[in-house]
Amino acid sequence: MTKTIYIVGLGLIGSSLALGIRKAHPEYRIVGYNRGEQSRTIALKRGIVDEGTDDISHFAAEADMIFLCVPIQQTIRFLEELSTLPLKEGVIVTDAGSTKEAIVEAAETYLSAKNLQFIGGHPMAGSHKTGANAADVHLFENAYYILTPSRLTQTSTVSRLKEVLSGLQARFVEMDAAEHDRVTSQISHFPHILASSLMNQAGTYRQDHPFTQHFAAGGFRDMTRIAESDPGMWTSILLTNQSNIIERLEEFGKRLKVIQHQIEAGDADAIWQFFNQGREIRKEMEIHKRAGIDSFYDLFINIPDQEDTILTVLELLRGISVVNIRINEENRADIHGVLQITFKNKEDLERAEGIIRTQTSYQVFVD
Amino acid sequence: MTKTIYIVGLGLIGSSLALGIRKAHPEYRIVGYNRGEQSRTIALKRGIVDEGTDDISHFAAEADMIFLCVPIQQTIRFLEELSTLPLKEGVIVTDAGSTKEAIVEAAETYLSAKNLQFIGGHPMAGSHKTGANAADVHLFENAYYILTPSRLTQTSTVSRLKEVLSGLQARFVEMDAAEHDRVTSQISHFPHILASSLMNQAGTYRQDHPFTQHFAAGGFRDMTRIAESDPGMWTSILLTNQSNIIERLEEFGKRLKVIQHQIEAGDADAIWQFFNQGREIRKEMEIHKRAGIDSFYDLFINIPDQEDTILTVLELLRGISVVNIRINEENRADIHGVLQITFKNKEDLERAEGIIRTQTSYQVFVD
Repeated sequence: MTKTIYIVGLGLIGSSLALGIRKAHPEYRIVGYNRGEQSRTIALKRGIVDEGTDDISHFAAEADMIFLCVPIQQTIRFLEELSTLPLKEGVIVTDAGSTKEAIVEAAETYLSAKNLQFIGGHPMAGSHKTGANAADVHLFENAYYILTPSRLTQTSTVSRLKEVLSGLQARFVEMDAAEHDRVTSQISHFPHILASSLMNQAGTYRQDHPFTQHFAAGGFRDMTRIAESDPGMWTSILLTNQSNIIERLEEFGKRLKVIQHQIEAGDADAIWQFFNQGREIRKEMEIHKRAGIDSFYDLFINIPDQEDTILTVLELLRGISVVNIRINEENRADIHGVLQITFKNKEDLERAEGIIRTQTSYQVFVD
Repeated sequence: MTKTIYIVGLGLIGSSLALGIRKAHPEYRIVGYNRGEQSRTIALKRGIVDEGTDDISHFAAEADMIFLCVPIQQTIRFLEELSTLPLKEGVIVTDAGSTKEAIVEAAETYLSAKNLQFIGGHPMAGSHKTGANAADVHLFENAYYILTPSRLTQTSTVSRLKEVLSGLQARFVEMDAAEHDRVTSQISHFPHILASSLMNQAGTYRQDHPFTQHFAAGGFRDMTRIAESDPGMWTSILLTNQSNIIERLEEFGKRLKVIQHQIEAGDADAIWQFFNQGREIRKEMEIHKRAGIDSFYDLFINIPDQEDTILTVLELLRGISVVNIRINEENRADIHGVLQITFKNKEDLERAEGIIRTQTSYQVFVD
């Protein structure tokens, strides 16, 4: 029997999930809810969903699996609404919110009387783009996809969900919703507060110190990049993970006090240890290994300001698989800079290095 | 008469300055001091300097201009040492330290009795590489090069210095040393403390919450990138800009308290404003415009995991000037991702967009 998958919310996440589900299960019927017309129309036109609605109740009774891919507060409201709707026996309900404890609690509160299964979900991927127009079947490849069981989760829930989502090629991890929220408070939610606070601080400082506006370079740019995220989404995250975030915030305040006293005391050894420990820890983080691959191999090429330089380099390296490529601008505005090319293994790196050294006059470095 | 330029410290900055000076003034005699043998030998072999020494006094009396390109504390010690050496009348002494007030004060203290000119300097460029091996004549192109006058600066000092450095194509800005240190405390020194504190905090947290090690994604990676910088250099910076950094640190602590209370109060409007203001300010910063160029034009292309995809794209765009190129990985490990290509103007962007849309099946976005 053909399954009906109901995607509630056809933004980037919902419509990318739909594409991934269809990839592994072309026979499924995928239906979608979206309040706004634009993403719903695009999702229908691109065949991301087979049918669409702006009324969540419309497909609820037909669904074998319901993915709530709307903002956190909306997810909680829909969990309440689902409790009032006729649903299929044993339907699996899950979500895609960035915090999990509040959502799992809402599901347990509203849905315990229903014959259904609920498990929280957090596919940890995103993009600078939003909406169904940005839907990408590759979005979750190699990304962590956290599953947070609830009292409404059965043994079969996880295996059924993973089977439906097998086309995503995501890395599924099961964990407690509360622990999910603690970990993400440290590596995502609280850092967001730091980035926005720093940006706000610089905004005030520039009023009396106008060069603040101009001299900020690569480090500051990278540290504040996430300060340009959607304020509404981050407000919801803060309000559904309050205690963990405040705990991290207060603990951080203590760290600032410690380093402040070390600076005041002119304690060079302690300050050196502070910086060195940060450096050592970062080297150990998976972040440093770029999402799970053991290590990468970087070639750095000093390139001049000429058109098609990058093309010339890549033509020389034709056939060698490139993991990433970027120009490290640092503080410079124009194209000349260091072209960094990342390879999958040492052999590719060495081959590339040899080619560039022998066939160009560019300076080459290997880390 | 041929001028003699004395580069004291042949690391990345010193030897790149030498290359830039020679570019505009091939007739100058450029001599260099370096304590360590390796960079001295490389600088001689590459012709970055004509003669080298490991004894700072060696060329001091012959120099028309002396560039101190050593760590801050060493710069201060050398300023003291120069006071004891015979120097040419009217020699210009300058430096390249990241903080300026302590260095300007040291110069005024030690060198006021000498017939020389001193002006502080801070070329705001860097690289992930160090040493003479990484010397790059383009390093300072379009970078800000701050000059901080002292009591030992004459009207002619700045014009003579700029003339010698004309080959750098840097953007010279004169400002008060104290103001330099205030501005850099906000946009560089204090943010460094935030990055390293966050890294240290995550390092402690992962002991009880092991997923911390694994789930950190793009935002956290960018925010903590500078935590891998050289601890020694940053210790020196903190210890020569103490009061400004502590002032920023305490002010930041107050900001954290405010947002903490807003989170505790569940004040969605205030939190939204906090995030939104950070976003608006960042959009106004020069950082956002990438070092002085009014705006850039980005094309985003969804590329599949195939060898030579980037090459194929660049071949199609042959002849169109590319300002930068990168794959936005977000949380994904492998090559498929969004290829972001930056163009200099709207015409190039539109041409490129048309080519990719008509000649490939890749999804294309324009911001």
